[in-house]
Amino acid sequence: MEDRIKILETFDNKYPDRNYKIVHVQPEFTSVCPKTGNPDFGKITITYVPDKKCVELKSLKIYFNSFRNEGIFYESVVNLILDDLVKVLQPRYMKVTGEFNPRGGMYSIVEVEYPSNFQSNFIERSK
Amino acid sequence: MEDRIKILETFDNKYPDRNYKIVHVQPEFTSVCPKTGNPDFGKITITYVPDKKCVELKSLKIYFNSFRNEGIFYESVVNLILDDLVKVLQPRYMKVTGEFNPRGGMYSIVEVEYPSNFQSNFIERSK
Amino acid sequence: MEDRIKILETFDNKYPDRNYKIVHVQPEFTSVCPKTGNPDFGKITITYVPDKKCVELKSLKIYFNSFRNEGIFYESVVNLILDDLVKVLQPRYMKVTGEFNPRGGMYSIVEVEYPSNFQSNFIERSK
Amino acid sequence: MEDRIKILETFDNKYPDRNYKIVHVQPEFTSVCPKTGNPDFGKITITYVPDKKCVELKSLKIYFNSFRNEGIFYESVVNLILDDLVKVLQPRYMKVTGEFNPRGGMYSIVEVEYPSNFQSNFIERSK
Amino acid sequence: MEDRIKILETFDNKYPDRNYKIVHVQPEFTSVCPKTGNPDFGKITITYVPDKKCVELKSLKIYFNSFRNEGIFYESVVNLILDDLVKVLQPRYMKVTGEFNPRGGMYSIVEVEYPSNFQSNFIERSK
Amino acid sequence: MEDRIKILETFDNKYPDRNYKIVHVQPEFTSVCPKTGNPDFGKITITYVPDKKCVELKSLKIYFNSFRNEGIFYESVVNLILDDLVKVLQPRYMKVTGEFNPRGGMYSIVEVEYPSNFQSNFIERSK
Amino acid sequence: MEDRIKILETFDNKYPDRNYKIVHVQPEFTSVCPKTGNPDFGKITITYVPDKKCVELKSLKIYFNSFRNEGIFYESVVNLILDDLVKVLQPRYMKVTGEFNPRGGMYSIVEVEYPSNFQSNFIERSK
Amino acid sequence: MEDRIKILETFDNKYPDRNYKIVHVQPEFTSVCPKTGNPDFGKITITYVPDKKCVELKSLKIYFNSFRNEGIFYESVVNLILDDLVKVLQPRYMKVTGEFNPRGGMYSIVEVEYPSNFQSNFIERSK
Amino acid sequence: MEDRIKILETFDNKYPDRNYKIVHVQPEFTSVCPKTGNPDFGKITITYVPDKKCVELKSLKIYFNSFRNEGIFYESVVNLILDDLVKVLQPRYMKVTGEFNPRGGMYSIVEVEYPSNFQSNFIERSK
Amino acid sequence: MEDRIKILETFDNKYPDRNYKIVHVQPEFTSVCPKTGNPDFGKITITYVPDKKCVELKSLKIYFNSFRNEGIFYESVVNLILDDLVKVLQPRYMKVTGEFNPRGGMYSIVEVEYPSNFQSNFIERSK
Repeated sequence: MEDRIKILETFDNKYPDRNYKIVHVQPEFTSVCPKTGNPDFGKITITYVPDKKCVELKSLKIYFNSFRNEGIFYESVVNLILDDLVKVLQPRYMKVTGEFNPRGGMYSIVEVEYPSNFQSNFIERSK
Repeated sequence: MEDRIKILETFDNKYPDRNYKIVHVQPEFTSVCPKTGNPDFGKITITYVPDKKCVELKSLKIYFNSFRNEGIFYESVVNLILDDLVKVLQPRYMKVTGEFNPRGGMYSIVEVEYPSNFQSNFIERSK
Repeated sequence: MEDRIKILETFDNKYPDRNYKIVHVQPEFTSVCPKTGNPDFGKITITYVPDKKCVELKSLKIYFNSFRNEGIFYESVVNLILDDLVKVLQPRYMKVTGEFNPRGGMYSIVEVEYPSNFQSNFIERSK
Repeated sequence: MEDRIKILETFDNKYPDRNYKIVHVQPEFTSVCPKTGNPDFGKITITYVPDKKCVELKSLKIYFNSFRNEGIFYESVVNLILDDLVKVLQPRYMKVTGEFNPRGGMYSIVEVEYPSNFQSNFIERSK
Repeated sequence: MEDRIKILETFDNKYPDRNYKIVHVQPEFTSVCPKTGNPDFGKITITYVPDKKCVELKSLKIYFNSFRNEGIFYESVVNLILDDLVKVLQPRYMKVTGEFNPRGGMYSIVEVEYPSNFQSNFIERSK
Repeated sequence: MEDRIKILETFDNKYPDRNYKIVHVQPEFTSVCPKTGNPDFGKITITYVPDKKCVELKSLKIYFNSFRNEGIFYESVVNLILDDLVKVLQPRYMKVTGEFNPRGGMYSIVEVEYPSNFQSNFIERSK
Repeated sequence: MEDRIKILETFDNKYPDRNYKIVHVQPEFTSVCPKTGNPDFGKITITYVPDKKCVELKSLKIYFNSFRNEGIFYESVVNLILDDLVKVLQPRYMKVTGEFNPRGGMYSIVEVEYPSNFQSNFIERSK
Repeated sequence: MEDRIKILETFDNKYPDRNYKIVHVQPEFTSVCPKTGNPDFGKITITYVPDKKCVELKSLKIYFNSFRNEGIFYESVVNLILDDLVKVLQPRYMKVTGEFNPRGGMYSIVEVEYPSNFQSNFIERSK
Repeated sequence: MEDRIKILETFDNKYPDRNYKIVHVQPEFTSVCPKTGNPDFGKITITYVPDKKCVELKSLKIYFNSFRNEGIFYESVVNLILDDLVKVLQPRYMKVTGEFNPRGGMYSIVEVEYPSNFQSNFIERSK
Repeated sequence: MEDRIKILETFDNKYPDRNYKIVHVQPEFTSVCPKTGNPDFGKITITYVPDKKCVELKSLKIYFNSFRNEGIFYESVVNLILDDLVKVLQPRYMKVTGEFNPRGGMYSIVEVEYPSNFQSNFIERSK
């Protein structure tokens, strides 16, 4: 789905002089496993410090819904959402977390951050 | 509502030589969505280190109630509450957090701090 | 109640060469609102690193009970308990936290530390 | 079971330029106590920052199942899983945590990290 | 009970090149109050980074059981357990935490660490 | 507000040959205390067995919102909602429960049923 | 305190043709142990089916507060509250439950009902 | 989707001489709101006493998945699932419960039973 | 311990004309396994409808403590406590429940009632 | 495994004149799916009213462990456990409940009772 990113709408950050945190949580995220075709379910959390733009909430919901019938792996969907939102918002900071429901007893979490050049720092912290 | 800030009353901090933390939590915050006119519900948390003045609890409650029928966005209401309280209290530190109830399955959190010149620091921490 | 501090009894710290943490929690704290005369309820937590003396547990309980019919504000009672315990124990470190039950929907937390000259540090951390 | 490590399959990390965190949790881990022959039960959590490779989820599940009838101590199984996964994935960072069910009232947790030369740092943090 | 320490058995740490964390939790700890003769109940948690030796789990359980009919104060029992285990294991790091059940409404926590020369650091952290 | 009942819209029950249970829960109910003018908050639960008609969900939400600025007591609002819904739906059975947030430490629940001629039965059950 | 019952105020039940349930919960009940003089804490729950009168909420709160410094046993206070409320309200049904905080590790619940001639029934149910 | 019922496969109940209860819970049910086109989410619970046949678990999962992109109301989907399963299994008893996620703050539950001629009984119980 | 029953003290029930329920819960019950000599831990709950006498709370606590070093099976201890309390109190109804902590992963509950001639009824209910 | 039932040992019920309830819970039950060969996990609960014999706890644990590598369906394992225990204990009443972990998002519960001639009663209750 090439045009998914066009779904995302923005509005101007009215407080650009201040760093502050915005979190949007979608506990009803669903996509399809590209291997088995079975539906996957999970919770996606977006945490960011806006610069000039904020993401419009309803468009973000429609953006999430666009994955409903798409076959995509856990690692890919979380990285893809980060890439799309960074492209549209150019935020000062962003983290995307996907927590996926158990399959065969096991469950998984994937967490990606921007900017990505904070590398050594990340390894330190994630311990 | 131009005069909302006048609702806020203060009393003298009796322990100005000491940094200490005061937290007030309003789990019954409600305002109106400026787009749809539907009521929004959430929890507002004020955390601050007082300098010369503390906010009087009952006046803070009335201040929160003044948003009951006001159309205002999540991002705006949290920033506005910080601005009003900083203007009245001139605290050494303040954080305002708004955690809003799910709408269409998604929910949001907005968190703002004062002073705002702690910028690089913030980005570091919020990761 | 001028003589409240005399209620507090101590015993010798048998491990003064070691820094260690002692926590006492009173979830049944009650005093009286000085404005309305209505009872207030809350949880008081004492965390400290002893130096030469430890507070005797039963005397601490009686000390807390001495507030039962006293009219006193949230901010004052937490600061006062810290002052009394620091005077009696001369601890290496102490923190007193009061978490008070909702009144009119809102609830409050007050947290005070000793020593108080750790100022810049505090502001950093409390963010 | 010498060949257990061969069970583990990998796929290419599509985002090697970015440090990000992947977590896999197996709450249905079971092995056998080498002393008593009784079954042990626990939860194994793998947290890692991938470099060139990610572990394939289904093969990881089969790998965990291979311990089902093996007699092995808590400390050994957690260290062994780390060694196997590090050998196969060469990750930038990895942590393995085993939380085991109560036996005779007591329960245990073992947590191992890679790389292991972060020694002084570890002691600091684990306090 | 002079010979309590002899109850503790050890086995060789098979991974001495690596710093890793072992936690043993005994939620069924009981001793006797030396003042009133009434039983005390609590949860003891041992967290350590082993050096050459690990504590054998069953002997640790018997060691805990040896306090069952012994009159001993909260502060003493936690410090004593740390001293005994450090003597036997010579660990790289150890923390002992005792969380005791409410008596007369109040409950207490005592937490001790080894090595103890990390003093300034401790005060910093425990705030 | 005389015309509140007109807000409620209905649709035909497609399964009238079958007794079945429908529950609608509004955890964001708010009205105003007629004595103090302060806002009240609570959760309203509607449980019913439909006959010929079901209540349309969106109109029910608007109906609840119509109490937002109305001064009304707990006992009255729950009885009034039952009366309105019974008038509009003529259900085979209905129960309305209001669970209200603490005020001054105390909280209240009011529960009303239709038909009301099940009297002795009710007393029996509510014990 | 002979005149405690006079504290209780009532208002007319506007729905006397209908049996319905009213519950008032006071989680901040406190009195004094007549043996030791130590404060007792607990939660009192009043459940009733009104006849002609309902109890006014604020007066009920003041009534509960009147026990604050009174020495009274668990069994007595619950029976006394039932007797007082039945005398004032003449309800169709009433149940009073007292759940008291642990003392020396044990806690207690006392539950009394009116009318009391439902004897055999009670024994049946309470099993 | 006319042929949905054909998805359901069965196997022979090996214990037909005995009444026993089987429960299958699908917490990941999703369909589409026929009005707005937005996805709905909920939990479907099937409770039944088998007669000659039991439903095969995997086919039940595929049956639930067939609603993924279908526009259907809460009341309809629960009644439809009951009808389909009763047709295929001819069970001695069956109950289908749908608990749906909040939309605009409100959430709903629908519960249907078979056989449906237990009418008076139902009304009694559902109170 | 032949004389254990003598520990139990009673006081006169001041409300013998009324059936009411008294519950005493001891979450800190401990005895010794007669087979292994290891300590057992559990929660004992006494529920009764008093006739002429109530059990004095402190003596009940000492009675429970008398099992601390006694080797006794789960089934026996619960039946024994019922027998002792029935002998001393002659209650209208009594139930004793013992919920014991996991051993080897499994845990057990034993529940006994008086009078025991309610046999058919019991079987009915316990299903 | 034909001889599994021989694992079960019994001891004489010392209180045969009294109906009382014994519950044994095994939260660590595991067997193998006969279709896929993957391990299944669940919680088995045995509730019974003993007649002449009680089941010995350790033998019950070994009996449960004997299913560890056996391929068996949910419905079968629960019915089989009931049959085995009824054969060995001849209890007055018994219920076996199996609650199995999610597979592909769905989870299942199977519940069987003895005696099985309480048929109409069961259907009534299970609604």
